[in-house]
Formats: sequence, C-alpha cells, structure tokens
Amino acid sequence: MRIELVTIGDEILLGRTLNSNVSWMARELSGCGYEITKQVTLPDEKKALTEGLQRALLDADVVIATGGLGPTADDLTKYVAAELFGSSLEYREEIAEQLHRRFGKIASIQEQATVPVKALCLPNPLGTASGLVFCEKGKTLILLPGVPLEMQAIFQASVLSYLKEKFPEETLYQKTLHFSILNENQVDPLLRTLQKSYPEVGFGIYPDYGVLSVHVKGRSEDQVKGIEREFLQEFSPYFFSSPQGKIAEALQLWFVENHKTLSLAESCTGGALASLITEISGASDYFLGSLVTYSNGWKEKFLGVHSLQTQGAVSRDVVQEMLEGLWKNSACDYGIAVSGVAGPSGGTLEKPVGTVWAAIGKRGEAPEIGKLQLKGSRKTNIMMTCNILLGALYRKVTQNMPAFPLILDR
Amino acid sequence: MRIELVTIGDEILLGRTLNSNVSWMARELSGCGYEITKQVTLPDEKKALTEGLQRALLDADVVIATGGLGPTADDLTKYVAAELFGSSLEYREEIAEQLHRRFGKIASIQEQATVPVKALCLPNPLGTASGLVFCEKGKTLILLPGVPLEMQAIFQASVLSYLKEKFPEETLYQKTLHFSILNENQVDPLLRTLQKSYPEVGFGIYPDYGVLSVHVKGRSEDQVKGIEREFLQEFSPYFFSSPQGKIAEALQLWFVENHKTLSLAESCTGGALASLITEISGASDYFLGSLVTYSNGWKEKFLGVHSLQTQGAVSRDVVQEMLEGLWKNSACDYGIAVSGVAGPSGGTLEKPVGTVWAAIGKRGEAPEIGKLQLKGSRKTNIMMTCNILLGALYRKVTQNMPAFPLILDR
Repeated sequence: MRIELVTIGDEILLGRTLNSNVSWMARELSGCGYEITKQVTLPDEKKALTEGLQRALLDADVVIATGGLGPTADDLTKYVAAELFGSSLEYREEIAEQLHRRFGKIASIQEQATVPVKALCLPNPLGTASGLVFCEKGKTLILLPGVPLEMQAIFQASVLSYLKEKFPEETLYQKTLHFSILNENQVDPLLRTLQKSYPEVGFGIYPDYGVLSVHVKGRSEDQVKGIEREFLQEFSPYFFSSPQGKIAEALQLWFVENHKTLSLAESCTGGALASLITEISGASDYFLGSLVTYSNGWKEKFLGVHSLQTQGAVSRDVVQEMLEGLWKNSACDYGIAVSGVAGPSGGTLEKPVGTVWAAIGKRGEAPEIGKLQLKGSRKTNIMMTCNILLGALYRKVTQNMPAFPLILDR
Repeated sequence: MRIELVTIGDEILLGRTLNSNVSWMARELSGCGYEITKQVTLPDEKKALTEGLQRALLDADVVIATGGLGPTADDLTKYVAAELFGSSLEYREEIAEQLHRRFGKIASIQEQATVPVKALCLPNPLGTASGLVFCEKGKTLILLPGVPLEMQAIFQASVLSYLKEKFPEETLYQKTLHFSILNENQVDPLLRTLQKSYPEVGFGIYPDYGVLSVHVKGRSEDQVKGIEREFLQEFSPYFFSSPQGKIAEALQLWFVENHKTLSLAESCTGGALASLITEISGASDYFLGSLVTYSNGWKEKFLGVHSLQTQGAVSRDVVQEMLEGLWKNSACDYGIAVSGVAGPSGGTLEKPVGTVWAAIGKRGEAPEIGKLQLKGSRKTNIMMTCNILLGALYRKVTQNMPAFPLILDR
C-alpha cells in the first residue's frame, strides 16, 4: 500500500511554521508498519489544491491531507475533495447538535456541520472540524484539520483503526524504548550490530532535547523482545518507562507510588522545568511548586542566596544555596536548583553561553552538583537542561545512581 | 515565476526529523518576495527521485532540492539530476584541490570533486558537497546539501544572488499582522469582504492558542498597506507588533522601553506562563520571576493566600490574594495571578475543567479579575490561558484597555 501525506497551507510555504504534522503522522504510521512514499505541501489556492490532490490520488492508494478544514474563507479542502469525488454537500443535523452542545451558539456551526454526502465523518474531540474520509475505486482520501492537537486526536481515535481494519495484512510487532541523556552516537554501534543480525527489522532513532527514543519494528513479538533485551543490557541505566515518552511522566509514577514530593528553584530554565512536570495530568499529587527566581533580587528574597556578588548567578555556590533555600522554605523530599546562561547573549569567556550549573538533592543528604556545557540555541539549551535534569533525578531515585555521571562536575 | 522546494530523504518520511530546511528556505525566499508554489519530500530511492524531480521541473520554473549530495551509497541526487539534464560527470581538479586544502586527505574527495559537466558549482564553505545549478530550456534546478548549516551557508552566499540576478522583476509585497485573543470566526467577515475587493491578493489566517496571525500577500506596497489599515481599523485593540509573532516579545519591548517590571503567581499554568516570557532573549530586563505555587501549602506560604478552605483554589478571592501576595513579596510594577482547572481530571459541576480565574494588576491600582471558560485538552487550556493573559496585559499596558473585555467577569 502506498501512502502519501499532503499538508495544506500557505503558512508552511511561507516558512511561518514548521511542518510538524508530517513528522508526527510519519512516526505514527511507520510505527504501525505503514510506509510513506511521498509528502507534498500545497497552497491555500483552489487550482493548485485540486491538481495536487488529484495527482496524489493517482500516485498513492491512501492520501492523508491536513489543513484547510476550518470555517473561514481560505479553507477550501472540503470543497475541493467533494468536487474530486463528485459529491454534493449536505447539512448534518447530528453534527450541528453536537457542536452546539459542546461550544454553545457559535457562528461556524452551519459551515462545520455541512459535509460532503459521500464522506464518512470522524469526530473531532477538541475542535469544530470533523475528519472526513472518501473511499472510492480503491482510492482513499482522509482529510484532517491542520491544528496539530486536533489532527492528532482524530488520528489516534479514528484514523489508525480505520487503516488497520481496511489494510489488515500490514501488521508488525513494535516497541519504543525511551532513554534519557543518551545521544545518537552512543547508540549507533549497537544499532549497526543489531541491524546486521536482524536485517528485516526496522529501527528508528529519534533524539529530542536530551531524550532518545528507539523504535523497533519486527516480524514477531519474540524478535522485538529479544532486541529490547539487548538494548537494556547495554543502556538500562538510562532507560525510562513512559507511555508518552516523557521523563516527567515516568518521574510522576515513581514519586506518587513512593509518596515523595518535589520542589524546584529555577533560574535559566525560567519555568520550563516546572512546565514539563505540570504538563502531565496528576502532577499535583507530588509536585509542590517552583520558585522561578529569574532576577537576583528574587534569588536572595525567596531562597536566601548570598554568593551572587562573589560567585555570579551561574555558579556552584549559587545553585547549592538555591537548593538549601528550597529545604528551608518548602516541605519537599526532593529538589532541583538550576542557574545558567541560556543565550544567545549573556555569555562570557569564563562562562560561555550554554554553561549551566545544577544541584539535585534529597532532603537530609548532601546535594549532587554538576555543570552542563551546552552548545545549542536558547530554546535548545533550555529544553536540554530540563530533560537532562529530569533524567538525572529519575536515575537517582529509581536506581540510586549519581545524578551527573556523564557531565563535568566542577 | 514558480518555485518548488524538494526535500530528499527517508528520515523525513519516517518522521525521524522535522523538515526545518523547508521552513528556513521558505522564509528566506518569501522574505525576498518570491513565492513557493509547492513543496515535496521524496525518498532516497532512484525511481521515485527521478520521477519526482522530473515532475517538479515540469510544474515549476525553479526547483530547489536539498539532500542526497553526500559521498555515500544512498546519495543519489547528483546522478539523477545529471541523467535528467543529459549530462555526463567530470572530475574537477580545482574542487579536489580546495577540499584537500580544507579537509586534508579524506576518502570522499574523489567522489565530491566529481560533478555533472553541465552544472555550475556553488562553493560550500562548511562541508564537502558543492551546491549544483542546472539551467536549460527555461528550467533551473538547484541542488543543495541536506545538512541545515551547509544548505544555509550556500543559500545565503550564492543562491539568493543567483535568483535575484536571473529573476529581478519578481517581487510580491507581504505583511503578517498579529492579534491576541481574536479567533478565526471574528476575523472571517472582514476577510471575505477584503477578498472580494482584492481578488488577486493572497490571505492566510493562522490561529495558534489564543493568538491569530493574518498574512497578506499583494502586488504592491500600497495595496498591502491599505489592507493593513482596514484590519487595524476594525481590530486595533487586539493588534500587537512582534517579529516572531509572540505576545511575550511585544510585551518585552513595551516593558523594557517603559522601565517597568513584571512578576507572576502561577497555579494551573504550572510555569508555562513564565516559560513563554523567558523564551524571549532579554526577558531578565523586565521579568523578576514567577511563584509557581502548585500546591495549596505554597499558595499560603509564599503568597499569604487564606481563602483556600472557604472558596477553593480556583476562585476570584484566591487569585486576588495571590496578586496581593505578589505586591507584598516582589518589587514588581505589574503582576498576573492565575489559578484554574487545566484538566482532564479535577473538574466539578460548579467548576468544570477549563475554569480559570485570573487577576491582572498594576501596583497601587485595583486589580482586574476575570474568569475564562475553556474547552480544550489540558495542554490547549494551559496554552490558551497563557496567551490570553499575556494579550490582556499587553492591551492594558499599551492601550489602557480593560484586561477582560470578552470574558465573563463574575
């Protein structure tokens, strides 16, 4: 089966947005053993859209298109697809009723409840645009909204099961393993060895700001489990178990199960560390709070830091004092304190951009203090710092391993 | 002139990597007034590559393709392009000498100095793969390496000047307008009117968690400016000016220029509000910090909140007390306090998921307090809350408008 992805929207062709829908869908599809043969981005323009979709349907068996399903004048996808499949449109009372129940009296109901007669509707649990499926003469066209969370919700709730039912022979055994701190180069030698031993197995490595996910796609459950064992034998200290692939989720499981609490003192991460933790539903069961002491005054006031003048805000002494401030002011069992130069400005010869000091500790024990030296953009430096520290805390609590094994300490 | 971008590589079709080359090139090209009519991703496979490039050259005048120019077996682009243009390959001594001078004796010199006879070479200041330009019968094919930094270096040094010389007359005038709080439905009527008056102008609307961007692409500067005026006439209260399209950036400009400071007291946003602010370089010039008081204990301890028992954490009284706690404990000029039910659990009949109370204030003045009732997922609710509150603060400081004009206030 040939699958083609079509993303629709001037914003991509203008470079205003990264095409994250493609990588998300490609990951989901290849994770289920489906292969994508091509990807195309088309503008919000009727002629180009018509020609592009027509051609995609000639080339591929299944075309999944995102974008252009909103209620406004530049949203054309539904109309173009209806024309291609020779379908008129109809107002569906049941869609209108649902939208009304969920969103109240909004102007777009009339438009969003009007769908092609020939289309199957896939409910959108988050927004107003239903997914639409056309299927005729061996060609399937699936339309999804371009808003990533809405696309993802429909994809997971309806598209995967639809494909699996219609194309049942394409099933593979798969597993994704998540590791903190590891990078691609560290995993590559084992991967090459495994690829030689199992030439028919598909491997994918996905690095994401200090988290590495390895996807294994094999012919049988035993085969995939055997490969998993080989990875764990070499990298178990870095492994974490999380359905969403997020360290914060794995951390939450441990903290809640062990009835422990966590507090943070953040400077350079500026709330991003707390934000990753609170992104996971249920965080309030173990997370007390974060003192985002961005200014020196706040570090002194809320954490009692006193070495700013002598050592500078980015220093071993300051993060140690920040952590001590947490013990004094919060009843937490565990704490993380972090201060660094996120960049792009603010670096010095002695403390270049990407210098980050952090302290991780358990109440009543000596803290572990380490330095990271990162080399990315502001955003990369912040996200890397967050994930490295969450991973370090996870290893510390679950395996009692040093928080900073790979990182220059002092 | 029609420009098509072709990205080559299995890693994109497998979802292993975000296609950042497309958004980078699209931004550069549209910044110079060039319009991209389509974008395609092709696999590392000879037949698909040949057909895909051939089709792109039929559809467009200029095709820019990235990837597949390395020295290894899966790098096919150079050979496929040579075949398409009926060109043999030749070893160029001057390229080999340059590579040798820069990289020493490396194995890939022979391969990388062998180029199609018909191709113009664009020097690569960072790597071994030269850019290649084919031009015949009104069709131009530009090949660039897929490594982002190398692609960018060749693009800026050679590609833009090449295009400007060959296609001097092609320029469009464009402008992106950013609005807070507005949604697509509110802008749509004006958009439809304008589209009728200016059928040749391209409009795009891009909603993003409580921020709306409108892109206008016209034939002349006057035309685009006229359209901008019509938008501002109707929506100026919601307009903000920011190169990156982020309210936090616009806020930072105002606060720094006016020598004011800002502090936060966050509960349901869990650090995300601070994180959006500190994502912008230079935030430390006005942002003092955020008390992420996720637990009730922290709200009492750091902010002196005392109505938790009687009113519940998600209430008018609690956010008011949180803001008062900020005035007491931080020297800030402005403050935001926020507490809500992000979901998916934690909702009640009286306070369903998506109920958010917020207080926005200036020191010494009565705070403005409002309630949001959101309907998204946990992440959507958090991001919407953040952008709505930043937008409300922006309107308050820049235009002295009520912070909560659209929102139920008690």
